[in-house]
Amino acid sequence: MAEPIARAIEAFGRMPGIGPKTAQRLAFYLLRQPRSEAEALSRAVIELKDLIRECSTCFNLSETDPCGICANDGRDRTAVCVVEEPLDIVALEKTASFKGLYHVLHGSFSPMEGVLEDDLRIRELVQRVDAGAIEEVIVATNATVEGEATANLVRARLRHLSAVRVTRLAQGLPIGSDIEYADDYTLTRALQNRTRL
Amino acid sequence: MAEPIARAIEAFGRMPGIGPKTAQRLAFYLLRQPRSEAEALSRAVIELKDLIRECSTCFNLSETDPCGICANDGRDRTAVCVVEEPLDIVALEKTASFKGLYHVLHGSFSPMEGVLEDDLRIRELVQRVDAGAIEEVIVATNATVEGEATANLVRARLRHLSAVRVTRLAQGLPIGSDIEYADDYTLTRALQNRTRL
Repeated sequence: MAEPIARAIEAFGRMPGIGPKTAQRLAFYLLRQPRSEAEALSRAVIELKDLIRECSTCFNLSETDPCGICANDGRDRTAVCVVEEPLDIVALEKTASFKGLYHVLHGSFSPMEGVLEDDLRIRELVQRVDAGAIEEVIVATNATVEGEATANLVRARLRHLSAVRVTRLAQGLPIGSDIEYADDYTLTRALQNRTRL
Repeated sequence: MAEPIARAIEAFGRMPGIGPKTAQRLAFYLLRQPRSEAEALSRAVIELKDLIRECSTCFNLSETDPCGICANDGRDRTAVCVVEEPLDIVALEKTASFKGLYHVLHGSFSPMEGVLEDDLRIRELVQRVDAGAIEEVIVATNATVEGEATANLVRARLRHLSAVRVTRLAQGLPIGSDIEYADDYTLTRALQNRTRL
């Protein structure tokens, strides 16, 4: 196979979830497209690295510093939602149910995988909350073992700020799900966290 | 979401088999990688268009014209294998079972999808065979309705060259398969094409 095709297949294949067959299909797809299509992809990829930085307040990825959310005067500055990854903000913003600020930890506490407390933006979170304006910290880490450990760690590091409410996203049955098919852990949590009707 | 991230997600999402969720995952993956990784992908994508052309003899995609296979003196110049797409050559070359030349039609005859005879490199194939050195044309189009139609069309266009043998890849049970699970068409073809033991 021609070198440039092999190189493109290899580059696609290094990405997560892209196997050799898919990588091959993508390369040959681009070969059939006009140059403008390949150009757009090529430019978009490099601009990801050149135009995107971390917001120095919330560590979300953004073109500007502070990011659009931190700079938005319409947001509630007394509430901060703590997430593991920037993509979590995308999901939360889509709900339009939260009007406060965010804080991205960039990972979850997982000593088994070598992610320790200092690898996460926890110290920066404590500094933000220490500054005084924040009244509630909503911990929106994943409902996984690592997410749980991260939530507990955040909780511990904010313990000295007794005036600040630290909350966690509710866990229970997902909307639209059948109890018959719910797993044991979810059902147990749904029972424990039952609310008054 | 920041514009450059949205643009990258959109560019990935335009590719076949890449849904919005996968596109998002790819963009955020690249954001976490060193710039060199994004650079390599960006460069590989644009070089696909800038460095790759069609071989003017066999219409395979190549950095050179003629392509490596057409230029290789070690190949058998009396046999030409006709394929639908360049990827088919990759698969056939991997078998190391064919030492002749190739001819890429760039598609299959499919009037329903608007692919007519003139959209395929059939005229160029007839010219190559007309030139005289070729003794056998192996039609290696897909074992599909379109592939079959394409094979019959190639057969018809080469009819006047009675000295040239036109053959087709065998159809039957794939190696390692159970008869119990074979589909009716495959089993029918395997019966029709049975060989002497």
